[in-house]
Amino acid sequence: MHLEVVGIGDPPLPKGAPQLVLQLLAGTLTPEEAEAIQQAVAEMRRIDWEIWEKTEGELEPVMRESWRGRLKGLYVITDPQLGGGHLTGARAALQGGARIIQLRDKAATTRQLIEYAQALRALTHDYDALLIINDRLDVAMAVGADGVHLGQDDMPVPLARRVAGDALIIGVSAETVEEAIRAEAEGADYLGVGPMFATATKPDAGAPIGPERLRQIKQRVSIPVFGIGGITLENARQVLQAGADGICVISAVLGAPDPAEAAHHFAQML
Amino acid sequence: MHLEVVGIGDPPLPKGAPQLVLQLLAGTLTPEEAEAIQQAVAEMRRIDWEIWEKTEGELEPVMRESWRGRLKGLYVITDPQLGGGHLTGARAALQGGARIIQLRDKAATTRQLIEYAQALRALTHDYDALLIINDRLDVAMAVGADGVHLGQDDMPVPLARRVAGDALIIGVSAETVEEAIRAEAEGADYLGVGPMFATATKPDAGAPIGPERLRQIKQRVSIPVFGIGGITLENARQVLQAGADGICVISAVLGAPDPAEAAHHFAQML
Repeated sequence: MHLEVVGIGDPPLPKGAPQLVLQLLAGTLTPEEAEAIQQAVAEMRRIDWEIWEKTEGELEPVMRESWRGRLKGLYVITDPQLGGGHLTGARAALQGGARIIQLRDKAATTRQLIEYAQALRALTHDYDALLIINDRLDVAMAVGADGVHLGQDDMPVPLARRVAGDALIIGVSAETVEEAIRAEAEGADYLGVGPMFATATKPDAGAPIGPERLRQIKQRVSIPVFGIGGITLENARQVLQAGADGICVISAVLGAPDPAEAAHHFAQML
Repeated sequence: MHLEVVGIGDPPLPKGAPQLVLQLLAGTLTPEEAEAIQQAVAEMRRIDWEIWEKTEGELEPVMRESWRGRLKGLYVITDPQLGGGHLTGARAALQGGARIIQLRDKAATTRQLIEYAQALRALTHDYDALLIINDRLDVAMAVGADGVHLGQDDMPVPLARRVAGDALIIGVSAETVEEAIRAEAEGADYLGVGPMFATATKPDAGAPIGPERLRQIKQRVSIPVFGIGGITLENARQVLQAGADGICVISAVLGAPDPAEAAHHFAQML
């Protein structure tokens, strides 16, 4: 192994800004030395984490501002049974103007999820759209998705943030004003609020909460809010008038005779 | 934010060993400066990854050697329906001498898995035992488990290694010599080979492959090998005589009238 010096901050960071300098000097390794570098790397990771903890409060507004510009518009959740399956459905939705695709499949094995997610990652890149993975932070990290969506039965937001670091969008489902405020405080980047209206796609969803609840939530949080649940071309305007930054749909797009056309009609409203 | 200088390698690493020096100089942050440090941290992480890639070949033997000493003995997989559930069953197994506990629950929500895993993490620490999580790398990372166990329907080993880094044990299920060799080549830290005998606990398990297959696998890989599937106090000796480093059981311990006593009988054989 060669002697190596790596400097971070070249070109230099702005005057007065923090500077990070990492120097690695490496010689030929004995097992003891290899163990020593292992410990040093572990220590560096610990300190890396400390840096993140100290700076997150100041970084978050910057990062969120850059994401916020993309956390809006038509958000389509794929379904293994609708629109020809995950890939075909997502492609039609993107052709019609969807800006965010969520992979949700509670029945798939992890191996299948990885395969779907890798294909959707390539597809969403082609359309400059965001890819969010439902529930499975490991799948999101493994395929380089933009984010993970966490329901109230999924991983607690602070744990997910700790595992994923600051480079992943975390979306959270919220039904009440209290859940919405807590999710934002815990570090959620956007909210999915619903069900807006009665829906048959997600049998475990609760009773509809209506657009008025979304309006109340919008008054109390600053992160983007999507309406979800039973939204159709007919009732979508009520959700937007309540202040939604975007609309999440499944069957209204993927169950339509022509999913791309249905997505296009939604996208025109947004 | 205060000026801060963090030096790694204090006390110094052995003479001639690699040295890592990380210096963080932090002032009051404007948004632009916050973005700059964000970029610097990302760059540091990239370099951290590069270091890992360059050193893994030399680190792995050292790390594996330290783990290998613990990847043996009685390995009990918990079950929500057996032995009083995950926690009660694991406690009895540990009292009886189990050295490794695996949390497996394909029906639980992520939130439930996190809760079980956090409780098992505390319990296994008390007994200085290893905690492995079945399938769910996200849960393993969130609770600080020692490792993850991946079946052939779970995340591919190279992806899991990339997400988890070098600090996590990755175990892999193998039925054939070919699967075993590939798993070791891809970075698995141990193998679960089976089913050794007919079993009712895991209905999706294939036909028994017998201890002779384990013997063939042991001749071709250097990582520890556990026999799994239908192992009882009566037939366990066949598995050990075939060269198994340890034995994985579920019902033979957790389905016994006194799980701690059953674990103790297995532990005495190992």
